[in-house]
Amino acid sequence: MSEDNAALAGCSFSIHPMSDNFVELITKAIDKTDTSKTWIQTDKVSTIVRGRMAHVFDVSQSVLAHTAQSGKHVAFHATYSVGCPGDTEGHSFMAESDELMNISANKRLSLDVAAKFALYPMDGGDYMDTIYEQIENMKSFGVEVTPTHYETRLDGNSHDIFKGLHSVFQKTKEAGSNHTVMTVSISANSPTQES
Amino acid sequence: MSEDNAALAGCSFSIHPMSDNFVELITKAIDKTDTSKTWIQTDKVSTIVRGRMAHVFDVSQSVLAHTAQSGKHVAFHATYSVGCPGDTEGHSFMAESDELMNISANKRLSLDVAAKFALYPMDGGDYMDTIYEQIENMKSFGVEVTPTHYETRLDGNSHDIFKGLHSVFQKTKEAGSNHTVMTVSISANSPTQES
Repeated sequence: MSEDNAALAGCSFSIHPMSDNFVELITKAIDKTDTSKTWIQTDKVSTIVRGRMAHVFDVSQSVLAHTAQSGKHVAFHATYSVGCPGDTEGHSFMAESDELMNISANKRLSLDVAAKFALYPMDGGDYMDTIYEQIENMKSFGVEVTPTHYETRLDGNSHDIFKGLHSVFQKTKEAGSNHTVMTVSISANSPTQES
Repeated sequence: MSEDNAALAGCSFSIHPMSDNFVELITKAIDKTDTSKTWIQTDKVSTIVRGRMAHVFDVSQSVLAHTAQSGKHVAFHATYSVGCPGDTEGHSFMAESDELMNISANKRLSLDVAAKFALYPMDGGDYMDTIYEQIENMKSFGVEVTPTHYETRLDGNSHDIFKGLHSVFQKTKEAGSNHTVMTVSISANSPTQES
């Protein structure tokens, strides 16, 4: 994972427990997440986490995992970014070690979820080839991968899905995209029946 | 708005009322929305709406407007797309007339919201110049526009924000982007205090 050291990564994410006590559920999930290796800031619309790529995924996954433990229907939306022109603040966090602070909770609290993701390689490389290659790559993570409009559907264990998302994001960057964006939507504990 | 006729547009969106009766709130909002000029399909993760660009914005805005009328904290997330390679089904809806089916409700139910958006011109044009130009364009819609990480923050009336989003999306396409994506997050009735 040497590429993690090369560039500041980040994500703007939000978590939505569909419950009257959503404030308490979100606050508890953030409190239970170790964010010490990242720059983090929350506003009305989203929470921004920045630092080394591995920690950005670790922290965002943890907030979802802890919130979903409530059993409530929870939606998670995130935009991951690396190489965004002008994204330079917070570089002190690039010196943090490899050790993931939330991995044991992320494994323990993993659950089956439905997700959608989309890759946007903005600068460099043949962007559609890169996207198709990384959709193929996602299949190696034990996740069910299905085409849908504008995004790719993923069904499986949340920990496997996050491992896959981290991998495809990093490989897109390695394929020559100097500015890479990935959007992710995850639905946990959904009551929606699909035929 | 002649460009609306040129290419099939679409959006994958989801709406999250943070309330125990979220199912009822979402179902009512969709029932109150006239979707007759669009192709629409819902699964566990999102709802996909496709057709002429103006109707895609009209329908997605309406679902948010009706849900937010509950007074509950509601989050809306959408990925708008036009020119996506392979997105061809549903072309019969391209023959629909200009008349917007939900505009009176969208005006009447408009409310102050906080939003974030990001543009991804995937294929053609100088993508960063196009993005900066359209962030400037957004300021002409009476919306407060503030830079933030990975996205641009918008504060203002929801109807003004949707008019601005429709405009910047169309102008990005006109600037030479053959495949244009725009992500939008909107938070309505948020209890979060910002300093």
